[in-house]
Amino acid sequence: MRFFSDNTSTVCPEILEALHAANHGLACAYGDDEWTQRLDGTLSRFFSTEVRAFAVTTGTAANALALATLAPPYGAIFAHQEAHIACDECGAPSFFSGGAQLILLPGEHGRITPTTLEAALTGHRIDVHTVQPAALSLTQATELGTAYRAPDIAQLAALAHARGLKVHMDGARFANALEFLGCHPAEITWRAGVDVLSFGATKNGALAAEAVVFFDRTLVRDFELRRKRAGHLQSKSRYVAAQLLGYLESGVWQRNAQRTNRLAQRIGRAAGAALLHPVEGNEVFLKLGVPRRQQLRAAGFEFYDWGIESAGEARLVVSWDQPEDDVGALCGALARL
Amino acid sequence: MRFFSDNTSTVCPEILEALHAANHGLACAYGDDEWTQRLDGTLSRFFSTEVRAFAVTTGTAANALALATLAPPYGAIFAHQEAHIACDECGAPSFFSGGAQLILLPGEHGRITPTTLEAALTGHRIDVHTVQPAALSLTQATELGTAYRAPDIAQLAALAHARGLKVHMDGARFANALEFLGCHPAEITWRAGVDVLSFGATKNGALAAEAVVFFDRTLVRDFELRRKRAGHLQSKSRYVAAQLLGYLESGVWQRNAQRTNRLAQRIGRAAGAALLHPVEGNEVFLKLGVPRRQQLRAAGFEFYDWGIESAGEARLVVSWDQPEDDVGALCGALARL
Amino acid sequence: MRFFSDNTSTVCPEILEALHAANHGLACAYGDDEWTQRLDGTLSRFFSTEVRAFAVTTGTAANALALATLAPPYGAIFAHQEAHIACDECGAPSFFSGGAQLILLPGEHGRITPTTLEAALTGHRIDVHTVQPAALSLTQATELGTAYRAPDIAQLAALAHARGLKVHMDGARFANALEFLGCHPAEITWRAGVDVLSFGATKNGALAAEAVVFFDRTLVRDFELRRKRAGHLQSKSRYVAAQLLGYLESGVWQRNAQRTNRLAQRIGRAAGAALLHPVEGNEVFLKLGVPRRQQLRAAGFEFYDWGIESAGEARLVVSWDQPEDDVGALCGALARL
Amino acid sequence: MRFFSDNTSTVCPEILEALHAANHGLACAYGDDEWTQRLDGTLSRFFSTEVRAFAVTTGTAANALALATLAPPYGAIFAHQEAHIACDECGAPSFFSGGAQLILLPGEHGRITPTTLEAALTGHRIDVHTVQPAALSLTQATELGTAYRAPDIAQLAALAHARGLKVHMDGARFANALEFLGCHPAEITWRAGVDVLSFGATKNGALAAEAVVFFDRTLVRDFELRRKRAGHLQSKSRYVAAQLLGYLESGVWQRNAQRTNRLAQRIGRAAGAALLHPVEGNEVFLKLGVPRRQQLRAAGFEFYDWGIESAGEARLVVSWDQPEDDVGALCGALARL
Repeated sequence: MRFFSDNTSTVCPEILEALHAANHGLACAYGDDEWTQRLDGTLSRFFSTEVRAFAVTTGTAANALALATLAPPYGAIFAHQEAHIACDECGAPSFFSGGAQLILLPGEHGRITPTTLEAALTGHRIDVHTVQPAALSLTQATELGTAYRAPDIAQLAALAHARGLKVHMDGARFANALEFLGCHPAEITWRAGVDVLSFGATKNGALAAEAVVFFDRTLVRDFELRRKRAGHLQSKSRYVAAQLLGYLESGVWQRNAQRTNRLAQRIGRAAGAALLHPVEGNEVFLKLGVPRRQQLRAAGFEFYDWGIESAGEARLVVSWDQPEDDVGALCGALARL
Repeated sequence: MRFFSDNTSTVCPEILEALHAANHGLACAYGDDEWTQRLDGTLSRFFSTEVRAFAVTTGTAANALALATLAPPYGAIFAHQEAHIACDECGAPSFFSGGAQLILLPGEHGRITPTTLEAALTGHRIDVHTVQPAALSLTQATELGTAYRAPDIAQLAALAHARGLKVHMDGARFANALEFLGCHPAEITWRAGVDVLSFGATKNGALAAEAVVFFDRTLVRDFELRRKRAGHLQSKSRYVAAQLLGYLESGVWQRNAQRTNRLAQRIGRAAGAALLHPVEGNEVFLKLGVPRRQQLRAAGFEFYDWGIESAGEARLVVSWDQPEDDVGALCGALARL
Repeated sequence: MRFFSDNTSTVCPEILEALHAANHGLACAYGDDEWTQRLDGTLSRFFSTEVRAFAVTTGTAANALALATLAPPYGAIFAHQEAHIACDECGAPSFFSGGAQLILLPGEHGRITPTTLEAALTGHRIDVHTVQPAALSLTQATELGTAYRAPDIAQLAALAHARGLKVHMDGARFANALEFLGCHPAEITWRAGVDVLSFGATKNGALAAEAVVFFDRTLVRDFELRRKRAGHLQSKSRYVAAQLLGYLESGVWQRNAQRTNRLAQRIGRAAGAALLHPVEGNEVFLKLGVPRRQQLRAAGFEFYDWGIESAGEARLVVSWDQPEDDVGALCGALARL
Repeated sequence: MRFFSDNTSTVCPEILEALHAANHGLACAYGDDEWTQRLDGTLSRFFSTEVRAFAVTTGTAANALALATLAPPYGAIFAHQEAHIACDECGAPSFFSGGAQLILLPGEHGRITPTTLEAALTGHRIDVHTVQPAALSLTQATELGTAYRAPDIAQLAALAHARGLKVHMDGARFANALEFLGCHPAEITWRAGVDVLSFGATKNGALAAEAVVFFDRTLVRDFELRRKRAGHLQSKSRYVAAQLLGYLESGVWQRNAQRTNRLAQRIGRAAGAALLHPVEGNEVFLKLGVPRRQQLRAAGFEFYDWGIESAGEARLVVSWDQPEDDVGALCGALARL
């Protein structure tokens, strides 16, 4: 039973259906098709504000292209020390930006606190010898399966904006955070000060589709050229746009997030004291110790080790198509440990 | 009736079928799935030699990642002056390689001749002040719809290898060239000295799938890291691999190339004296003059202008799903001009 | 007798004197010294307009940093095909800018004509697939020893500005061109539309000093950060500034340029029909044919071959400290050939 | 009385003398001069092993070029969190390498311990999603004025080499560390496992001269091309080489380091309990508290604040030409505080 990652999931029927529906006639390439042209409108309605949105196929592309648009080569990007952009993208932000440097901040449960950010910004000497603070990148839901509350995002963004930084949000699991918080998408994005959002769909049911959503629309020409030269402008662009449209219009984003959040909550409750972080999305982190972790694996559950080897931590992720029985079995096994 | 580009085409039924067939069960992400694992074998059989093959979603990514693996930041890449990497990728090779420079060569019908290449290599001063010759990039079929013959490739590659350059082939329309030449894929690739091939499937019927095929397998570790940090490693990698497997295993690569080549030939014959280049793939280039070009457009045919405005040239591309009637109508219109 | 390059020359007494004069007391580092602080004023007076000026130690640094400030990573820089930035800097502009591409233009005697530039700008397709025209770089004096006249610069700059390009001038031998033209420095720079000038002093008598002079002062913050991270901000900055001050204030720039221009003219006259380009600076290009070139070398003259081997061309450069006798001997030898 | 930095110092008479001595005759440019040609020999003798050495004019250039030679764009460079390459070079290592990432390690008194390095290397997950460990960079003397002992360097280098990393040493103040340790230069470099050294001369009396010394000579061709395209190959190369030769051959490296170390020791003793780190070079770090720091400044002493504002720390650096009276006055003032 696989709890490796939501990337192991299949493509949702509604999204396959959207691919089929787009599969007729000769359509102009490179974004001049009717599906791509509808993206801005659909995402503007979703966020209740006018946005410009661009489709790419991976989260790394979405994040790194967005950050390259925000940060000059001599820029500094502030992020949590466990952020995907820091730990799992093989240096992509630096590659795309031409050398921008990440400044990594600690923070309980994967969240940066305003206090920590303020200290980091204040402590960052500004002269010609240092990289220049350019962007703050927040992950929603975080890498540890928690969600930032709207007022925290607003406070963090205000600190950033006060010093001229732009605010990026890595929303690879945005739907899960949104569903957990039960708020309007605007509240945790542009109303809270987010300038650019990587809006993920792949993990939550798409084949390969992420939108880079610009609330600050002044930046998009630079972005479009960077996307092209990075090989991230799809020639048959209708298919990636169609996935995003299908994801939003069918409501599958919500249905899938509700289900995975609910199942993750169930696992979290079964884990009891072993639970490391509040379950606010579709990920569960456990401190089992090495022997119990081995036991769990021997019982047929597949998942990734986490953190320092000796601590015996584990990460379990619920996919949108995770069989309900897998979760039942896992909860039983956790109870027995 | 659209003759803009083969990128306007839909996805071939066999390839949509392959996506469906892969759409079950939780599969490991980032290439550890059974489809991706079969890529090397399938492409090795296709080329009759052991290769390492990697899937990406765009031709620009395939070309630029391949070239970045071959050329250092201070490298020089020799290519035809109309090459896609020179004219249509917004500087991607320089971005991915960290600054490598293209040296552009003229050549009739989109082909570099051995004489031109030899003169360029001989004339390129080698000292610490100049970019260092690192790679030759050939396009097959060329940007002007022609195909290199095997002995010409072998001669060009030999010149390149003699001076320590690696040889890349941009095969965005490889199937069309192969089908036109009627030879074994090995003859125009590794047996002729090609080290790395961008093997395109998107234009010829896939959704978004190109394989980077390494005949020289020593280079792949570098490639894999560059692909990841460029955001071109797909998380749900099974779907891009499945497209490539479907493309090769169903024989659709050949069927589609045969059809588009045949229809392009028909257009070429109808064009008569207006034909600019031999039709050796699915593209037709015409010198109509501005008034006749306007007439053709007024008659309902959509295509791109080509070359210098005043010359009145046109490019017409046949898609795999081009209605036969479109071609009939076009031939009629050309005859009437 | 060496006519290799003006880079073979020694440091002029006035400039060594300036180094001595600066060599007392503890002075703040990295530009906060009194010499550096005087640079803007001195160069503003020289050019009769307010400029911001920055010292670096090499011409490659001056050119590439200036161009990186003008061109984004997806930018195109138009330059003569024999420009130093294209042929002799190992790809520096692309490195510093993060991938900008040079578009090389032909032109008699090393000069781009307005007609050629206009055709290149008009012919450059502008869409997301192409590098975006960002800068024009002119060399004054050119790589073939000629000088652009003020009206030509103005016409070229106007064409560039009309399309949103900035104008850079590579003035590694600016003093020689200025002296030849006998005009005010303003006439061939800002009044003609130049935005940034690489103002060379090294070849004309300094130890290692070039100023990047910004007539468009909005760009300098970006430049300063790029300079630092490229390792081109000198810690003991007073010494490079002192060279530039000494060069300008002592009038040595003019005296040396007058002398080398005069001697080069003399060689040009002695060369007669072998002269390839008008002598408008301190360089002389000859078409001797291979045998006569060998003879000249056998007679004890050292110089670089130029162009295609078989043409037997030669470049001879007069240094500020070239012994008068060398020139006399050379003229004699040329007359005898 | 200025204790800002050793970069505020003048040029040492012996080195000015070396410039004068080189200032005659036409010498080939770009390293083909007799002074540059003697660099390898002189530095080979100094280190008692065959090295290849290259002159540049700044420490940032030396460090970043050396690191770019050791680390691929997807490489990770391990360094102390207060290293110059991390805090004071505006992201230069990332720029020169095309994106390599610094992994910053804590460590008392500016030194990385083997335990810390081992944990960092062990904890660094190696797969395609992470930057690949490529180099360890040690600073000698450290940014906090301490020196690594030979066995510690050997142990750190062994850990690095065991995992395939190369070892770089930032020796901007190498002479001070060497003089303090009283050992042979080989003991703290190649015999301890250092592959490439940035050997500083500027702070210790030169005008602008640093040598990049390759103990691992396989890497130099890449370095030479990177140096040229970064604008760090001096045209009149004799003058930077002459500085380095003069620095080494006259013994000024040792005389100056002895003097500044001795004076720094004296200040350290006068500081008593305020001393933050052992004085093992020419830098003294004091914890004064904000009021006493103000008092010291009011008494006419100029220096940089250090660390967090509220802690009231100060850095005082002794220059080679620091008046003895400045130091006497400072010691008196410290005693009185």
